[in-house]
Amino acid sequence: MKMRENIEFGTTIALWGQCADRFLSQGYKKDTSFKEKIELISKVDDMKGVDLYGDWDVNMDNVGEVDNVLKEYGLKAFIVTADVASLPEFGRGSVTSPVKEHRELAGKKIREAIDIAEILDCPMINLWLGQDGYDYSFQSDYLWGWQQIIDSISQAADYAGSKNIKIALEYKPREPRTHLFTASVTSMLMVVTKVNRDNVGVLIDTGHAYMAGENIAESVAVCSMNDDKLFYVHVNDNYKVWDDDMMVGSIHPFEMLEFLYWLEKTGYSGPIVLDMFPYREDPLGAARESVEFIKQMREILKNIDEKEIEEIMKSQDAVKAMNMIRKNFIRNIKT
Amino acid sequence: MKMRENIEFGTTIALWGQCADRFLSQGYKKDTSFKEKIELISKVDDMKGVDLYGDWDVNMDNVGEVDNVLKEYGLKAFIVTADVASLPEFGRGSVTSPVKEHRELAGKKIREAIDIAEILDCPMINLWLGQDGYDYSFQSDYLWGWQQIIDSISQAADYAGSKNIKIALEYKPREPRTHLFTASVTSMLMVVTKVNRDNVGVLIDTGHAYMAGENIAESVAVCSMNDDKLFYVHVNDNYKVWDDDMMVGSIHPFEMLEFLYWLEKTGYSGPIVLDMFPYREDPLGAARESVEFIKQMREILKNIDEKEIEEIMKSQDAVKAMNMIRKNFIRNIKT
Amino acid sequence: MKMRENIEFGTTIALWGQCADRFLSQGYKKDTSFKEKIELISKVDDMKGVDLYGDWDVNMDNVGEVDNVLKEYGLKAFIVTADVASLPEFGRGSVTSPVKEHRELAGKKIREAIDIAEILDCPMINLWLGQDGYDYSFQSDYLWGWQQIIDSISQAADYAGSKNIKIALEYKPREPRTHLFTASVTSMLMVVTKVNRDNVGVLIDTGHAYMAGENIAESVAVCSMNDDKLFYVHVNDNYKVWDDDMMVGSIHPFEMLEFLYWLEKTGYSGPIVLDMFPYREDPLGAARESVEFIKQMREILKNIDEKEIEEIMKSQDAVKAMNMIRKNFIRNIKT
Amino acid sequence: MKMRENIEFGTTIALWGQCADRFLSQGYKKDTSFKEKIELISKVDDMKGVDLYGDWDVNMDNVGEVDNVLKEYGLKAFIVTADVASLPEFGRGSVTSPVKEHRELAGKKIREAIDIAEILDCPMINLWLGQDGYDYSFQSDYLWGWQQIIDSISQAADYAGSKNIKIALEYKPREPRTHLFTASVTSMLMVVTKVNRDNVGVLIDTGHAYMAGENIAESVAVCSMNDDKLFYVHVNDNYKVWDDDMMVGSIHPFEMLEFLYWLEKTGYSGPIVLDMFPYREDPLGAARESVEFIKQMREILKNIDEKEIEEIMKSQDAVKAMNMIRKNFIRNIKT
Repeated sequence: MKMRENIEFGTTIALWGQCADRFLSQGYKKDTSFKEKIELISKVDDMKGVDLYGDWDVNMDNVGEVDNVLKEYGLKAFIVTADVASLPEFGRGSVTSPVKEHRELAGKKIREAIDIAEILDCPMINLWLGQDGYDYSFQSDYLWGWQQIIDSISQAADYAGSKNIKIALEYKPREPRTHLFTASVTSMLMVVTKVNRDNVGVLIDTGHAYMAGENIAESVAVCSMNDDKLFYVHVNDNYKVWDDDMMVGSIHPFEMLEFLYWLEKTGYSGPIVLDMFPYREDPLGAARESVEFIKQMREILKNIDEKEIEEIMKSQDAVKAMNMIRKNFIRNIKT
Repeated sequence: MKMRENIEFGTTIALWGQCADRFLSQGYKKDTSFKEKIELISKVDDMKGVDLYGDWDVNMDNVGEVDNVLKEYGLKAFIVTADVASLPEFGRGSVTSPVKEHRELAGKKIREAIDIAEILDCPMINLWLGQDGYDYSFQSDYLWGWQQIIDSISQAADYAGSKNIKIALEYKPREPRTHLFTASVTSMLMVVTKVNRDNVGVLIDTGHAYMAGENIAESVAVCSMNDDKLFYVHVNDNYKVWDDDMMVGSIHPFEMLEFLYWLEKTGYSGPIVLDMFPYREDPLGAARESVEFIKQMREILKNIDEKEIEEIMKSQDAVKAMNMIRKNFIRNIKT
Repeated sequence: MKMRENIEFGTTIALWGQCADRFLSQGYKKDTSFKEKIELISKVDDMKGVDLYGDWDVNMDNVGEVDNVLKEYGLKAFIVTADVASLPEFGRGSVTSPVKEHRELAGKKIREAIDIAEILDCPMINLWLGQDGYDYSFQSDYLWGWQQIIDSISQAADYAGSKNIKIALEYKPREPRTHLFTASVTSMLMVVTKVNRDNVGVLIDTGHAYMAGENIAESVAVCSMNDDKLFYVHVNDNYKVWDDDMMVGSIHPFEMLEFLYWLEKTGYSGPIVLDMFPYREDPLGAARESVEFIKQMREILKNIDEKEIEEIMKSQDAVKAMNMIRKNFIRNIKT
Repeated sequence: MKMRENIEFGTTIALWGQCADRFLSQGYKKDTSFKEKIELISKVDDMKGVDLYGDWDVNMDNVGEVDNVLKEYGLKAFIVTADVASLPEFGRGSVTSPVKEHRELAGKKIREAIDIAEILDCPMINLWLGQDGYDYSFQSDYLWGWQQIIDSISQAADYAGSKNIKIALEYKPREPRTHLFTASVTSMLMVVTKVNRDNVGVLIDTGHAYMAGENIAESVAVCSMNDDKLFYVHVNDNYKVWDDDMMVGSIHPFEMLEFLYWLEKTGYSGPIVLDMFPYREDPLGAARESVEFIKQMREILKNIDEKEIEEIMKSQDAVKAMNMIRKNFIRNIKT
């Protein structure tokens, strides 16, 4: 099938970091500077830009320096992530915190991400409401929580819109809380519909979608049929239970293949961005393997007759689907 | 808190049947007649009506007889379920079947359910698209499938509307397929929004919601904030992995308690309907235990000061929430 | 690596049947005769034998006829499965049923399977205690249940041993009950150790192992390190939540690759037997795709230097492992 | 039923800490000193001792001070946990690390925990091999890994035995790795059987058992039927997907009730130890609620006629089981 040329790859910065967890809060690896990380990133073929996480990677004080480093290595800022999940103040929620001051701080941090994006000439921010949820029965007034989310995003959208910046909303069903409000692609599309702003859309993280029980290819299609509201994608793999943030295609290669097919079919025009957390792996190796995997799969898709795929989907014949995958995807030693 | 008086309980008929599965397709129990089942149902306190499954329980030929039996035992027809999941023709989908004749048959079966509902003076039909989904990668054209669903439901809504009948859409993430299209409360609300008919709303089956990773109380709230689109509820329990259709409250009693609280808080006015599948249990005992459980929990809620609950939710304090549950819900021997 | 030549493939008979479930208890397909099924099976390359399920496929009355049909088509009886899960009498358990007569019937059915195996010159029976478990808290005396299992298997082992027949014990965590006693590879190995008979070992069904949260390659290794107690394997794939019984490698191809590697490495000498349930698929196509998939993967393994794999495992370097898989397993269009 | 008097409660120290995760590696709360934590712990009724985690809480340098603080507040050291999971050196495994020096360090840390236990007059150490596992296919030589585990525990057992100290082995299926070797109660009992030392047994963490798909009551019974090898219990609750480490009984109260019943029935004589991680909760409140919950449940059990429970289990009648639970466990407002 016809594949978009010159696809851009990106990466989060956290991929290249210490990778802490609750058992090793000091991290599995030694810390490195932002510049050292960017230098490593620049060594990956076709890597064109980065996701910058607010506070972790960039803030109003160091944004000039960040900009310089990115330019030095020829990388773009693809997205700036508002830091509404990684400050102690947000431990019990950001825009849905029970503490008014913390809700206000959340608004401030979102606007800050927009300001930083503007400075970096970055077209989009990422909003992941990773602490906005609940854990126990009777702990939360759901109606109030949802209203807070819709109102806060609406306000952020207006502020971002005034600077011609888009907001990509990232959903996830759980972690770090047992229940997050914006938990699935359709719950996020509900938010997008209610907020009803041109500059607000969805970010699909394939691992989060797996956790939510979704078929990632269908998630792309569902965004597409809602006013083409897919704004950004994060790719990684996991065992569908937790956000393992593993190398792309390592567990579910065929689902990734179909995801790439649907990105193409629905005209997704943004970058493909690695969001992995290689606790125990060399980040450069993990990133390279993931990019090579995706490129190899895109070559395979390019080689397949789109008509054939469409005929199979029309027939809904699973045997034909598997035969097509096997013949095209798996190496045939004998041939 | 103030609880609605004279709540009505209902039950599916399948609860009282043979309970087959793929290992025992002849069923775990002996077959009984419709009348025998209704007689048993009438023995459960506060049972006021039944769900009738198309073909399994009722069809255009026996509808008069069914009506007579229900009247004899003083039970209402709460809902008629369109049979779009249990005929061999629908094995590969109903409104999304690859076979045109089967899609047409699906439309016919939906209209038939509406016609039967009209005859029985039943205000609502249930539409569960239980075979409309997919199992393998590249098996399905998601855009086409979703469009079929929206178009089919729109047409059904118009037909039902002409007879003043409502359609309650039941979602479920999987079984009998590994992926169903209408998989979660927000995916179903997306359908409801797109269909945009007054007489179309959502049916929450608590077990299906658990399978979808939902907190069932939040699911009620989310329907409420979408134009009060909760039309009907099915109750049962499971281990959140599969649709075990177990006795109400047997595994997750506190989540059921919170569900009942939110039904009340959001003004749900329909019946509470048992949809269990007691493969190995006496149906009369299983139904009675479930009804008694719900009644006991509603008494407990009645006894709690709503202000207290609202204060806890406002504080988002989980310790207070658990303390409130423990003190009110769990028997205290020492007192 | 060096791969065993002349590997034998097998299949359950149920794969070729009507594939019923609780929504379509009449099955998704039309029934066919045993002979028709065998004829289809014989059309799959390298298919050398079948699994016969007691009562469903074979009984003391028709065993002669079954033998004739198998011989006519040149297929062996690889295993006979004792029917302790598919009679209404076993709905509440077989060897752990609360009803003494049903426990005795279970013993009888096991002996019957052994007798049938003897007649068919079949070296092994399969014992899957699929109804022996529980669903609710306080429903079961676990100590009594486990003792029943150990005692029953010990008796069966002696009876089978007297006829020089082996017993392969198949584990599964759930379905048709929410909890089965013999739920995982190590729980089954516990039984094997306690029973302590030469002719008793484990049957790994890859789908059941996935449901149990196992890595199927490790499960093979764990059997190997327990006196080489892996007696038999069933292959299929699923989404790790339920026993979807899908085509081999369709979801988790790399885990299947590693499984095949470990079968070879640990010297497994039995057949590779398809145990799928293609509800909506053509069985011949599904079986052929699965066999071709396995053969293609075995060719790939044959082509890999075992030393390389061993070095990677010694280094525990995941990037190297993924690189090895990608380079060897996935088709490279550019080359 | 007859319940053991003077049951002892304990707690991990981590429950009272900062509760970090990968998003808030600085923790959700402010740090406090060991003494401040112990002082808080001493305020919980019936709290008699603590679990000390090596390095986090205690080391060879501060052990004297720790001893003093514990004595000052009248608390015992119930267990010392060997630090084989929380040092960067163990990021890729402890006793199964690919790095020889790290494997040796693991042995040293285990012996250190034993030495500390001896100093504190503590009868037991806890060994949780939380980094010993793998994440990707072909990453690990399972046979080598398992042999390392068995050999290392055997050596540790001999060293501990020489000081009359026991080793409680804690299993968990995943986190911080996607697959841990010692993943379930029966996989751990396999280790116990192979190690074959009197002083080696199992620690059941109820949350870990839930993650492994276990019924926690059955897990107790299975340890009991293996030479009474249940040495210790950690209690908490979760949603069965991840180690949420929530308040006891908050999600699955009836399974906790049955767990307490089986502890009693099988003669478990150790303490009941809270192992929670209240990221967003007041630890004192969370601990008190959990202890009160358990005490209230034990009072309920005391009030039930054991004969009645045994009759129900003998009948395997789930309706009776649920009726018994509802009548005894749930508050009946009307009475």
